[in-house]
Amino acid sequence: MGCTTTQSQEGVSMEAGHFHLTALLATVLTALYWPNPGLSQDTVVHLMPAPQHIAINEGRLRLDRAFRVHLSGHSDPRLLAAVARVLHVMRNKTGIPLALLPSPDPEQSVFEIQCEGPGEKIQSVRSDESYTLEVNNRGGRLAAPSPIGILRGLETFLQLIDMDSESFYVPAVKIEDRPRFPWRGLLIDASRHWQPVEVIHRNLDAMAAMKMNVFHWHLSDDQGFRVESRLFPKLHQIGSEGDYYTQDEIRETVAYARNRGIRIVPEFDVPGHTTAWLAAYPELASAPGPYAIERSWGVLDPCMDPTNKKVYAFLDAFIGEMAELFPDEYFHVGGDEVNGKHWNANPRIRSFKARQKLKDNRDLQAYFNRRLARILEKYGKKMIGWDEVLHPNLPKNVTVQSWRGQASLADSVREGHPGILSYGYYLDQMQPAEFHYAIDPLGKEAANLRDADKNQILGGEACMWGEFINSDNIESRIWPRAAAIAERLWSSAETRDVSDMYRRLDYVNHELTARGLMHRCHYLEALQRMAGELDLDPLTKLADLLQPTGLSVRARTRKYSSLVPLNRMVDAVMPESEAARHLADLIDIALANPLRSKDAFQKIRALLTDWRDHRVQVKPFIEQSFILREVDPLSDAVFELCMAGLEALDYIEAQRKPTEAWQTKATSLLERCEKPQAEMLVAIVPPIQELVHAANAIP
Amino acid sequence: MGCTTTQSQEGVSMEAGHFHLTALLATVLTALYWPNPGLSQDTVVHLMPAPQHIAINEGRLRLDRAFRVHLSGHSDPRLLAAVARVLHVMRNKTGIPLALLPSPDPEQSVFEIQCEGPGEKIQSVRSDESYTLEVNNRGGRLAAPSPIGILRGLETFLQLIDMDSESFYVPAVKIEDRPRFPWRGLLIDASRHWQPVEVIHRNLDAMAAMKMNVFHWHLSDDQGFRVESRLFPKLHQIGSEGDYYTQDEIRETVAYARNRGIRIVPEFDVPGHTTAWLAAYPELASAPGPYAIERSWGVLDPCMDPTNKKVYAFLDAFIGEMAELFPDEYFHVGGDEVNGKHWNANPRIRSFKARQKLKDNRDLQAYFNRRLARILEKYGKKMIGWDEVLHPNLPKNVTVQSWRGQASLADSVREGHPGILSYGYYLDQMQPAEFHYAIDPLGKEAANLRDADKNQILGGEACMWGEFINSDNIESRIWPRAAAIAERLWSSAETRDVSDMYRRLDYVNHELTARGLMHRCHYLEALQRMAGELDLDPLTKLADLLQPTGLSVRARTRKYSSLVPLNRMVDAVMPESEAARHLADLIDIALANPLRSKDAFQKIRALLTDWRDHRVQVKPFIEQSFILREVDPLSDAVFELCMAGLEALDYIEAQRKPTEAWQTKATSLLERCEKPQAEMLVAIVPPIQELVHAANAIP
Repeated sequence: MGCTTTQSQEGVSMEAGHFHLTALLATVLTALYWPNPGLSQDTVVHLMPAPQHIAINEGRLRLDRAFRVHLSGHSDPRLLAAVARVLHVMRNKTGIPLALLPSPDPEQSVFEIQCEGPGEKIQSVRSDESYTLEVNNRGGRLAAPSPIGILRGLETFLQLIDMDSESFYVPAVKIEDRPRFPWRGLLIDASRHWQPVEVIHRNLDAMAAMKMNVFHWHLSDDQGFRVESRLFPKLHQIGSEGDYYTQDEIRETVAYARNRGIRIVPEFDVPGHTTAWLAAYPELASAPGPYAIERSWGVLDPCMDPTNKKVYAFLDAFIGEMAELFPDEYFHVGGDEVNGKHWNANPRIRSFKARQKLKDNRDLQAYFNRRLARILEKYGKKMIGWDEVLHPNLPKNVTVQSWRGQASLADSVREGHPGILSYGYYLDQMQPAEFHYAIDPLGKEAANLRDADKNQILGGEACMWGEFINSDNIESRIWPRAAAIAERLWSSAETRDVSDMYRRLDYVNHELTARGLMHRCHYLEALQRMAGELDLDPLTKLADLLQPTGLSVRARTRKYSSLVPLNRMVDAVMPESEAARHLADLIDIALANPLRSKDAFQKIRALLTDWRDHRVQVKPFIEQSFILREVDPLSDAVFELCMAGLEALDYIEAQRKPTEAWQTKATSLLERCEKPQAEMLVAIVPPIQELVHAANAIP
Repeated sequence: MGCTTTQSQEGVSMEAGHFHLTALLATVLTALYWPNPGLSQDTVVHLMPAPQHIAINEGRLRLDRAFRVHLSGHSDPRLLAAVARVLHVMRNKTGIPLALLPSPDPEQSVFEIQCEGPGEKIQSVRSDESYTLEVNNRGGRLAAPSPIGILRGLETFLQLIDMDSESFYVPAVKIEDRPRFPWRGLLIDASRHWQPVEVIHRNLDAMAAMKMNVFHWHLSDDQGFRVESRLFPKLHQIGSEGDYYTQDEIRETVAYARNRGIRIVPEFDVPGHTTAWLAAYPELASAPGPYAIERSWGVLDPCMDPTNKKVYAFLDAFIGEMAELFPDEYFHVGGDEVNGKHWNANPRIRSFKARQKLKDNRDLQAYFNRRLARILEKYGKKMIGWDEVLHPNLPKNVTVQSWRGQASLADSVREGHPGILSYGYYLDQMQPAEFHYAIDPLGKEAANLRDADKNQILGGEACMWGEFINSDNIESRIWPRAAAIAERLWSSAETRDVSDMYRRLDYVNHELTARGLMHRCHYLEALQRMAGELDLDPLTKLADLLQPTGLSVRARTRKYSSLVPLNRMVDAVMPESEAARHLADLIDIALANPLRSKDAFQKIRALLTDWRDHRVQVKPFIEQSFILREVDPLSDAVFELCMAGLEALDYIEAQRKPTEAWQTKATSLLERCEKPQAEMLVAIVPPIQELVHAANAIP
C-alpha cells in the first residue's frame, strides 16, 4: 500500500498526453512503411504492431557472435534482465551462441541502449513508452526516455531479425514509435477453467512481444476462487479445489510482468459471480446457503448482500490483503451481470432499499459500489468495473470497461468516467482477426465526443473468457488474433490494411513460437491425442480446414459445465483457418482476371484435389476413435465442397455456364455446409461459395 | 553428509538381489505379451520398457471424471506428489478434468495404491523397484514394497491409457514387474554446451516415464564449469560465462529427481578435462597458466598436478561442499583421457614419479585416484570413474564405467570392481535405436564371467555428450532412442524383437510429448527458423528423410567449437528417420512376396512419387536462406533416389530385368548418395538400395 501511494504521485507531468498519433506522423506512415522501392535490396519487414514511423534504409546489420550490447544512461534492473532475455530470444531465432551479459565497453558493442531517464517505482497508465531505434550496417542504437520505452524498442529489434542468402541480419531502419493508447490489455479468466502459472507467464511473454501493457487477471467467479488468501483461507481452500495461485506465485508473476513492462490489474468480481466466495463464506450471501462451487456458467442468482455490514468489513480486510499483493493502482471489482433475484427475494434487503430510497436494484448496486470505492480509496486504489457499474451516483474517478457496446463506452466518458473498450475484443467468440482489427475505441460512436472526453478513452482489452478453454488450447484461442487488437491499440488509426495485417499475423505465429508460446505445439498434441498412435498428417490436413464456433453457439448446442472434457476436435482446431484464407486469396486473384491467372487456377486446383483426396486417409482415424466420430460429416463436407469447387473451376476456366441442376445442387450443398456441425464450421465454405457464384454468373 | 552416512547403512538387506529376471518369468513372457488372441477385444499394449510379466485380460476400465485414487499403506510425500503428477498427465492424455487430490475414501476410489513399506531416506542402487499392477473393468490396484515401486507402476499405468470407439480406457491386465538391472542411467553433458535447468527437468520427466533411475550429470569439462561453488566462486564465475546451476537449482533438481525415483550422480571430471577449473585456479595445473575456457574439444593437454598438495586440499574442500549438495552415495570423478603431456613436460612431476617409483603416467593417475578415493570416503561417498581409472592399485570398491568396450567392462568386474556399461550407448554417435538395443551389459563378452562377477555389473548408462547439442536439439538426440536402452536395462534379456521395439518406440514419442517433452516441437521450430516465414510443409518432408552424422564424422568435417552456431539442418533433423523406416518396412513386405503385395507396391509408389515431387516446392526455401543452401544437393539426391526407386519398382512388378546401363547408373547413384553431404545422410538410401538389388536380381 505504501508503494501505491508513492506511485500515484509519480509521473503526473505525463498525464496530459495519451500519445494519440500526431497528424504529421500518420501521413508519412503509409508512404514509408514496408517495401521501399528505392532500395537496392528488397527489404520487407513484418513488425506487429506497426510502428508509428519507420524508414527503411540501405544496408543490413549482419548478426554474428560479435553482437554485443552496451547499456548507458539510467540503470534499471529491468534493463539488465531484458537484455539477457532479448539475447536469449536472439539465440533462439538464429542459433548463434551469443554472450548474454552486456558489454562493459561501448567500443566493443554493436548495439547501444541509451535509457534517458528513470522509470516509475510502479508502472502506470502514464508511463512513457516511446522509443527511437536506428540500425545501420555497422550497428544499432535504441534510445528512450524511460526503461519501458527501451523494453518496447527491444521487442521491435527482435522482430526485425531476418535472414537472406548470406546471413541473419537486421535491416537498416530508423523507427520513431510510441503507442496510440496507454491501456492495451489482455484479460484471462482463470476461474471457469484453471490456468497454471506457467501458462500465464507464456502469455505475458507473448503480450510483451506485441507491446501490450496490461494483464487483467480475472481471478474469481462462480466457478472458482483462484488466489490464496491468508486472512480468509477458506476462499482458496473451499473455493478452488486446490487450483489456485499462491501468494508467492502472485508476487513472482507481478515481478515477471513488470520486467516485461506489463501492469497486472486483478479482478475480484463482486457482488455477482461470487458463488465460489459464498461456498466458502455463505454468511456474505443474499440468500441462505449452503453454496457449492458452480459447474455451469451464465448469469446466476447467488450474490453478496449489499445491505450487510459484515460484507463491507470482509471486503475491506480482503482488499487490504490483495492491495499489497497487487501493486498496480487499479483494482477491478467486476460488477457485471447481477440479476437481483436473491435481492428481490430477501425481505430484509427489500426493506433496506425502501429505507434508503433505492428505487431499484441498479440503485442498490450503485450504493454497494460507492461503499466499495471508498474502501479502495483507503488502500490507494482506483476502482474499475464493467459497464453495469455505470450509474449517476458512481464516483467520477471510477473507470468503466465497456463490454456491451461502443455506445456504452461513449456514454461512460460523456458522464466523466475514464473508459476502456472490450466490446468487439471477445476472443471467445472465435471471430476472425479482421473483425477485431476493425474495432477502434475511437470509432464512429466516439466521433461526436469532445476532445477532452476522447482523451478519457484509455484504450482497450482483448478478453479471453474461460468457458471453453483449458491450459492446452488457451494459447491458440488468444494468439495470434490478439496481436491484431494489440496493433489497433498501439499503431496509428490509419494502419488498417487487412491483407497486410494478415501477412504479418502469419509471421507473428513464428515470432511467438520462437519466444516459447505453445499454441502450435499444443494443437498437434491435441490432434495426436485424438489420433492415438496413427500418423498425424491426414488428420492435421482436415483439422486445418475447420474452425470452432464461438461461445454463444456452443453454449446453445449442449449442456456444458467446467467438468465436461474439452478434448474434442472443436477444442483443438484453430479459430481462424490459415489454409482457407490462403485459398480465398488465390480465388480473389483468379477471379479478378480469370483469363490471365493460369497459375492461380492451377494452385487452387491442386489444393482442392489434395483436400478432396484426404477423406480416404482420414477414415481410419474416425473409425477407431470415439472422439473423432463426430468429425465424419465434416470430412464428407470437405470432400463435397472440394468436388463442387473443382467443378466450378472447370466452368470458369472454360467460361461455360453451369446447368440449372448443378447450380441448385451446389447452392444446397453450400447451405448445408454453412451450418455448424459438431460445433465447428468448415472454413472453406466462403471461398467455395465465391467460386460457385462466379460459375453461376457466367452468361 | 549426515544424510549420506545414514543412507549407506540403509537397505543393506536388499544387497543380494539385482533382480536378474528369473527363468520362469522369462519363458512366459513371449507367450503372453502383446495381442492376446484369446480375447474378444483386440487389445494391444505399447509398454516401454516391456514389463517382466503381463497378462492381458478381458475387459476395459473406462476412464471418466469419476476416476479417483486412494492411497493406503506407508505414506511418503513422494506418493502424493506422484499421484498429482499422474493425474495431471492423465488430464493431458485424455482431456478429462480429473480431481488431482487423492480420495480420502477407498469406497469412492477407482484406483487403489498400496505402498507396503517405507522408502530409503536417500534412494540407492539397492532400492526395491518392483510392483504389481492389476486392472479390471471396475478399477485398478497397484501394490509395491516401496514408494519407488509405486512410482514405476504409475508410469506403467499411464502408458496403458488408450482409446477405442467408445472412450478412453485402460485394458484389464495383470502385471508383475521389476528391473533386470539396478542402474539404468542417462548422462547429460552440460559443459560443452549449456543446458538450462528446465531442459534437465524435462529429461528427468522422460527418464521417469521410461523407468530410468540414474541421472549422471556431467558438470565440468574443459568448456565450462557449471555449478555454483561458494567455497571457490571463481569456478563458476570464471569457468562458466554465467551459464551455471545455482546451488538452489541443484537442490531443487535433486528433489525433482527424487520425486520421480531418480538418483543424481554428479560428475566432476579430474585430473584431465579441467581447463575450465584451471582458468579459475591456474595454481592447480601441471603447466604454468594462464588458462581460458576451451572452445574446441577433444583430448587436451591441461591437467591438474597430482604431485601438488594444494590440489588435494582444494579437492577435499570442494568435494565436501558438493557432497552436501548431492546426497547420492556415488560421486563420479571422471578420470578419462589424460594425455600426460603436461606431466611429462614438468621436471618437478617427473622427479616426483621417480621418487615414488611410479613407472608411467597411468601409475601417477592411480596415485591420484587413490588419494581421491580417500577424500571421497571421508565424505561417505563411493567413487566412480571412467575406464581409464582401472589400475591394479585402484581400491576395489571403486565402480568403473566402461566407455571403451564391453571387454573392458568384463575386465573391471573380473578385477573386483562393480561396473556400468556405456560402450554402445553413446547417443551422440547417431546410431539407430536397434544398434543400442542389441547391446547387452551381460552380452557375449560377459559369458565367461563367474556369477558373482556378473552380479557386479550394475547396469548401463546412455550418454548424451554435448559437442553437437544445445537446448533446442538435445531432446531429439536423446529421445526416443534412449528408450531402447532403457528397455534393454529394465526388461528381460529375451525381450529383443526389433520390429516390436520400433512399433512401441513410435508410441514413446507421443507418450513423452504428452508429458511435456519438446523434441517434436523444437524440430519444427528449428525448421521454421531456416524457412523464414515460408510454409513449412515441403521443408519438413525433406527433413524427415535426412539424418545427422554422428560426432566422429562431424568432428572430422570442419573445425568445430562451442562458439559455432548449431543452427543448420544437420542440427535439426532427427537421428533416425521414421519415414525411411516406414518405407523399409513396406519394401520388406513387398519383396517377400512380389506377386501378392499389390497394396505394398502401391504404397511404396505413392511415397516415392510424393517425395520426388517435393524438389520443386523446396527450391524457394533453399534460394532465400543462407542456411539451407547446403541442403540443395540432398534435395537433388532424394529426387534421384526416388526416380531410381520408382524405376526399380517398374522392373520388379513387371519381373523384367533392367539393362546393364540402368544397373550401372543406379549403383553409382547409390554409391554417391551413401556419402555424407552437409554432414547428413539420406535415410532412404538403404531401402532404395534394396529395391535396386531386387531389380538387378531378376533373372
